[in-house]
Amino acid sequence: MSNCAAFPNAGGIRPIRYADGILSLLDQRRLPNEELWLEYSDYREVAEAIRSMVVRGAPAIGITAAYGAFLGARAIEADNYADFMNAFNKICEVLATTRPTAINLCWALDRMKSLAQANAEQSPNNLKIGLEYEAMAIAEEDVRINMNMGRHGNTLLPNKVKILTHCNAGALATGGYGTALGVIRAAVAAGKQVSVYADETRPFLQGARLTAWELQRDGIETTLICDNMAGYMMAKGEVDAVIVGADRIAANGDVANKIGTYTVAVLAKEHNIPFYVAAPVSTIDLKLSDGSKIPIEERDGREITHLGDQQLAPTGIATCNPAFDITPARLVSAIITEHGVAKGNYLEQLAGFVRQSR
Amino acid sequence: MSNCAAFPNAGGIRPIRYADGILSLLDQRRLPNEELWLEYSDYREVAEAIRSMVVRGAPAIGITAAYGAFLGARAIEADNYADFMNAFNKICEVLATTRPTAINLCWALDRMKSLAQANAEQSPNNLKIGLEYEAMAIAEEDVRINMNMGRHGNTLLPNKVKILTHCNAGALATGGYGTALGVIRAAVAAGKQVSVYADETRPFLQGARLTAWELQRDGIETTLICDNMAGYMMAKGEVDAVIVGADRIAANGDVANKIGTYTVAVLAKEHNIPFYVAAPVSTIDLKLSDGSKIPIEERDGREITHLGDQQLAPTGIATCNPAFDITPARLVSAIITEHGVAKGNYLEQLAGFVRQSR
Repeated sequence: MSNCAAFPNAGGIRPIRYADGILSLLDQRRLPNEELWLEYSDYREVAEAIRSMVVRGAPAIGITAAYGAFLGARAIEADNYADFMNAFNKICEVLATTRPTAINLCWALDRMKSLAQANAEQSPNNLKIGLEYEAMAIAEEDVRINMNMGRHGNTLLPNKVKILTHCNAGALATGGYGTALGVIRAAVAAGKQVSVYADETRPFLQGARLTAWELQRDGIETTLICDNMAGYMMAKGEVDAVIVGADRIAANGDVANKIGTYTVAVLAKEHNIPFYVAAPVSTIDLKLSDGSKIPIEERDGREITHLGDQQLAPTGIATCNPAFDITPARLVSAIITEHGVAKGNYLEQLAGFVRQSR
Repeated sequence: MSNCAAFPNAGGIRPIRYADGILSLLDQRRLPNEELWLEYSDYREVAEAIRSMVVRGAPAIGITAAYGAFLGARAIEADNYADFMNAFNKICEVLATTRPTAINLCWALDRMKSLAQANAEQSPNNLKIGLEYEAMAIAEEDVRINMNMGRHGNTLLPNKVKILTHCNAGALATGGYGTALGVIRAAVAAGKQVSVYADETRPFLQGARLTAWELQRDGIETTLICDNMAGYMMAKGEVDAVIVGADRIAANGDVANKIGTYTVAVLAKEHNIPFYVAAPVSTIDLKLSDGSKIPIEERDGREITHLGDQQLAPTGIATCNPAFDITPARLVSAIITEHGVAKGNYLEQLAGFVRQSR
C-alpha cells in the first residue's frame, strides 16, 4: 500500500508518504540543508508535527491530518460503532485545533468523519480500512487537482513571463506538484519561458528554504529576494504576474494566505500587475461571507526574534507575529481552481465550484 | 579632545566616538548581542568599516568618513601643499567609493576637502589640525541638526500616535539622537503618547537589531514586526504615521532609503497614512533632478542566503540584493529637515533649505 509511485512525471517532490501504517513526512524545518524524513504512527505526534510545522501549506496540512485521523482510528479499541465514533471524533478534534487558519485541515477531517458517518453499519475494523483508503484518496486526488489547476492557470500566462510568488505554495505545500508552483510547472511544461522571483517569506522563510529549493530541483529559473524587495522589482518592470496560494478563501473571494500576501497584492495593484490566487476548491469556505471572519493565527514571537539559536533582537522586545493576512477580493485578479478560473464576481463562481466538487 | 560629553540629555547612544587620534565605532554588526567598540587609526581600515557596515546610516557614514579623511591626512608625509592635497584627494577618493547611495558620504568628504582648499597658505601640519577640528565639527553639528529635525517633525504628530519605522534612522545611524527616531524622541520628550512598530528590515535586520535595541534602551514602547507585516498592521488601523530616514533625496523630492521603504510608502498611500521622511539637508542632492538617477548599491547575495554561518537557502540559488529603493515624491507627505518641513512642491523648498545651509 504505497502512493509514492503515482504521477511520476508530475514534477516536484511528494513531501507526504504513506505505506503500511507508517506516515513519513519530509521535515520542512530542516530544508534546504537536510532532507530528513520523520515517521509517524501515533496521531498525537502527527498533530504536533502540524503544529510545529514539520509539514505546512494548507493542502499538505489537510492530507497529513487525514492520515493522522486514520492513525488515530487504527488505535481505537472499540467493539461497536458508537464507541468508535465517540473516540474518533475526539481524535479529529485534536487534529482540527492544531492550526486555525487553513480550512483544508477541517475539510479533510470532515471528509474522514463523513466516511465514517456514512458507514454506520460497518464494524470498527472495516471502518479503519475505509478510513485508510480515504486518507490515501485525499492525498492522490490532491495531486490530480493541482495538475488541473496548473492547466487552467497556465491559460492566464503569456509565453514569456516573470512571476513573483510569496511563501511556498509548491509541491511541498501539497500532496505534490503544488498550487501556485503547479501553475508555474504547467507553464514550464507547456514550453513557456518562465522565470520566478521567490519572496523569502519571513519569519519562517518558506520562500528561501522551500520554494527556492523545489524550483531549483526542477531546474526552473529562480531568483530569491527579501520580502521588502518585491516593490522595487515591480517598479523596475521585473514582474509580469504574481501567483500565490491560499489558506482559506471566503465566499466573496477574500483570501487568507501567508503574512505578506496582502502587501504583495497592494503592490501589484499599484503597478497594474495581475495578482492570481491558485487554490483547490477545498480551500473555499462558503460559511464565511468575507475575510474579516477568517481566524488569523498568531505564532510565537521567537520565530521573529531568533533564527535557530541565533538571537536577532534585544531580549524582551515586544513582537507581533500574525502568520496570515487577508487580501480583499478587489485586489485579486483571478482565483484558479481545479474546476476553472474565477474572475470578477467571485460570490457566484466560487459557490458554483463548491457545488461541482460535492 | 573628546566629543563624547556633548548633549548628554539628547537621548540615544552616540555610536561614533573620537578622542586623541583614535576613532571608536560601536560595531553595529554585533548588536544587540554584544556592545563591542572597535578602534581605528588608519583610514583604509575606516573605509573597510564603512564597506562592511560596522557603521551604517547615511549621516553616520558621513561623520565616519570625515574622521577617516582626517586619519588619512594625519599620516601624509608631505612638506608642501600640492603634495599634501594630491595625497589627501586620493584618500578621500578611497573613502568616497566605499558605498554608493548615501550622499552624506560625499557631502562630508567635500566639506573636508573644501577646508583644505580654502587654506592653501597653511602648512601640512596646520591643515591636519584644521581637518581634525572639521571632522569633530561635522559630528557635533549632526546631533544639533537632528534635535532641530526632531523639533520640526514633532509638530506633525498628534498627542497619541502609533508610528511605523523602517530600518534604523536612529542615534546609531547618526552622530546621535537620530533622524526618524529623533522625531520620535522629540515627540516622547514633548510628553506625547508614542508607540513604535519597527520593521525588522531584511536582510541586515537593522530594525530588529538596532532600532529595537536603541528604543528599548530609551524606554520607548516598541513592537518588532517582520517587513511583510506592515500592510497587515496598517489594515488593522495600527499605524497612524510612518517616519523613515533617507540616504539621498533628489531635487524633486524623490527619496532613496533602505530597501523596503518604497513598499511601506505604497502601503501608507493605500491606507491614507502620512508618510514622513526625516533627513538632514546634507542628504539633499540638487545635482540629481529625480530619483531615477540615484545609484542603487547591490550587495552580496550572501546577506540573503546566510545569517552568520547559518545557511537559509539552497546552495547556488540566484539572488538580487539591492540595498536601497526609490520612493517617488508623490508618495512622500512631508520631508522633515533641520531647517523646517517641506510639503507639496519639493523642488523649491528643498533648494531653499540647501541655500540656507551654505
